[in-house]
Amino acid sequence: MKAISIGLLGLGTVGSGVVQIIKKHQDKLMHQVGCPVVIKKVLVKDLNKERAVEIEEEQLTTNPDDILLDKEIDVVIEVMGGIDATKDYLITALRYGKHVVTANKDLMALHGTELLTVASEYGCDLFYEASVAGGIPILRSLVDGLASDRITQLMGIVNGTTNYILTKMSNEGRSYDEVLKEAQELGFAEADPTADVEGLDAARKMTILATLGFSMHIDLEDVKVSGISNVTEEDIRYGKQLGYTMKLIGHAHREGEKVEVSVAPTFLPNNHPLASVQNEYNAVYVYGEAVGETMFYGPGAGSLPTATAVVSDLVNVIKNLRLGVNGKSAVTPQYPKRLKDDSEKYSKYFLRIHVEDEVGVFAEITSIFAKNGVSFEKILQLPVKKNEVSEIVLVTHRTSISNYEQSLQELNDLSAVREIKSAYKVVR
Amino acid sequence: MKAISIGLLGLGTVGSGVVQIIKKHQDKLMHQVGCPVVIKKVLVKDLNKERAVEIEEEQLTTNPDDILLDKEIDVVIEVMGGIDATKDYLITALRYGKHVVTANKDLMALHGTELLTVASEYGCDLFYEASVAGGIPILRSLVDGLASDRITQLMGIVNGTTNYILTKMSNEGRSYDEVLKEAQELGFAEADPTADVEGLDAARKMTILATLGFSMHIDLEDVKVSGISNVTEEDIRYGKQLGYTMKLIGHAHREGEKVEVSVAPTFLPNNHPLASVQNEYNAVYVYGEAVGETMFYGPGAGSLPTATAVVSDLVNVIKNLRLGVNGKSAVTPQYPKRLKDDSEKYSKYFLRIHVEDEVGVFAEITSIFAKNGVSFEKILQLPVKKNEVSEIVLVTHRTSISNYEQSLQELNDLSAVREIKSAYKVVR
Repeated sequence: MKAISIGLLGLGTVGSGVVQIIKKHQDKLMHQVGCPVVIKKVLVKDLNKERAVEIEEEQLTTNPDDILLDKEIDVVIEVMGGIDATKDYLITALRYGKHVVTANKDLMALHGTELLTVASEYGCDLFYEASVAGGIPILRSLVDGLASDRITQLMGIVNGTTNYILTKMSNEGRSYDEVLKEAQELGFAEADPTADVEGLDAARKMTILATLGFSMHIDLEDVKVSGISNVTEEDIRYGKQLGYTMKLIGHAHREGEKVEVSVAPTFLPNNHPLASVQNEYNAVYVYGEAVGETMFYGPGAGSLPTATAVVSDLVNVIKNLRLGVNGKSAVTPQYPKRLKDDSEKYSKYFLRIHVEDEVGVFAEITSIFAKNGVSFEKILQLPVKKNEVSEIVLVTHRTSISNYEQSLQELNDLSAVREIKSAYKVVR
Repeated sequence: MKAISIGLLGLGTVGSGVVQIIKKHQDKLMHQVGCPVVIKKVLVKDLNKERAVEIEEEQLTTNPDDILLDKEIDVVIEVMGGIDATKDYLITALRYGKHVVTANKDLMALHGTELLTVASEYGCDLFYEASVAGGIPILRSLVDGLASDRITQLMGIVNGTTNYILTKMSNEGRSYDEVLKEAQELGFAEADPTADVEGLDAARKMTILATLGFSMHIDLEDVKVSGISNVTEEDIRYGKQLGYTMKLIGHAHREGEKVEVSVAPTFLPNNHPLASVQNEYNAVYVYGEAVGETMFYGPGAGSLPTATAVVSDLVNVIKNLRLGVNGKSAVTPQYPKRLKDDSEKYSKYFLRIHVEDEVGVFAEITSIFAKNGVSFEKILQLPVKKNEVSEIVLVTHRTSISNYEQSLQELNDLSAVREIKSAYKVVR
């Protein structure tokens, strides 16, 4: 019985996890795929580095061609990260008839459709479950489980770092800076946390999810992104008083044939299924026309969850290999992209405004909103602050982003308005 | 291009939903499976009954053989319910080379392994995603998504009726009888609610989940079942004071090579992912050695969610048909069944005891537990009730069921103990 040969690009924490799982579950894998699974070569940067996992010296190489051009290698697993060079490697692998499993969200967000098209041309599988929320089989569920439904909403907590920070700020009433520093010390946040806290990492994952969920090629630039670095503990506290929990939400929404995708700090009602997702956990909430609400919850990262997703994909590749049906399940987008313009995007908004403590100011403010067709669901009365500043917290009814932004602009021009302290989307 | 012919057994709410989805999504189905999908015949009890869905008169039949023996029918969808006759129908269908999709949990819980074996013999697919938590693609996730992991725990809220009742009791402080009555009026509970409230429905689903998750043939009789009909609002209130939420939990637990499966009203810590699953929603929590905690949440029943799951299975059957690989994915249990005995089953317990209000009673009680090696995590001090009865609420540390039951028996023999009012498992 011929063994399946794997080439592994990268031997960091995820790569080591993959090696470990393949070793540990060799019997179970045999049972599932009907043949042995062997890691033939591993691309590394440094042959002499100490490894967290047992691996033979002759399995290591620093030359990618030892994997990409080796006719005996059936499947390439990419866990090295990076974009341009990595993309070239994978295209070479696919052209040489190798199936590819990748955990690379940056690459898939930027070049997913192109890579899937190449895979499909060469009759190869290209699976990427591990690229979004490693511990949650969400991509497969979107393709298979909800196949006969029409998905209208995807809402995700898809970045563990920001969810950890917001959870701590919310539960412990601490400041963003303080919690970020702690998260960095504990290894939940990078030394340079920009990609996480500014929402870029979440935007990449939402690009992948929306492309798959709506079967429409969404570009990273189509995602409107804002991060959590300006969220204050005061905002979170006011939200609590109104029954809301603050989360960094990736939101992909389809109405009719048009879609919008955004990532933004968002207030959710406390009883929303996503509101109770705590710490570094991820969750993806899916609304399908027939099935209604479903949610998938699990670890978003971590070497073993991600490696598990990689090996699950590998099992599917090998099953397809033995059945001779690879490349049939590559899902390239089916519909042309149609994005909403701002007048078609609706949301509720939370606003916190500092105004002069004068008679008639409140009426001035509400008349601006009224003129733009924006009405209120909730208004929080607050005691006057020092310096004769009054604080007003408002939650609007659903309104278009154009009307909302027009109102904000007119508010800014009002002499009685000192500052719009914060503004967030509110869901449901 | 040859169309795929479907025979439908049953045209109740789920059957009508299936007809509706296949009609509405004909284009999308075509795109996914590459050929038209046609419902050729529908087995009904009464030809003249008014139907919720448009269907031609000549599509209806009261004779099962018109479907089971029709060579042109490729796939049989069973949504009629029932056990013995239905099992015979499905075995006939499989023997005639028809693939089967069923939503019948009772049948799969009792005869799943046998039916899967027949399917495998005849090279047929037998899919049953809709039988457990219709709106949640949990079975597929267990087979595919977590394929390279080792599942050690499955915890499920898999019965919507009981979750609805417990949610209302907990949120509104109302009694079981009152909420049950309301649930019946609203259609969330059957006129005869026994199978739901006594835990049998949940036990059937846990049988299916545990069999698949552990790859071990679990019988319905292996599941230790207790229902919610004795749960009082007082129990729920005391639980709340201790930070717990009451849920009817199906629990399948593997330690080493041995497993236990139970269904019982259980206290969960408020921050457990399952604790926030409200009303008629279902959720399945899965613990895998590599992936850690994951949870799948969604509607457990309802005609459209269940029908969606049925059609998803149908899509997979047809994909396999066109690839010529049916019958390869029937997953029959791989390991022999090994059940824990009581001395190997560990849990924490919540106990509420009425005792005489006398000096020394508390010491008598604790010494019984101590003798049996049971220690406490929490003790709730309560004011003395009328009739000189004192109420004691205890939460034990993890203990074996044998030691726990031995302690209960000795307590019962104690003259100072008036009554053990309630006893529940506590998780984590």
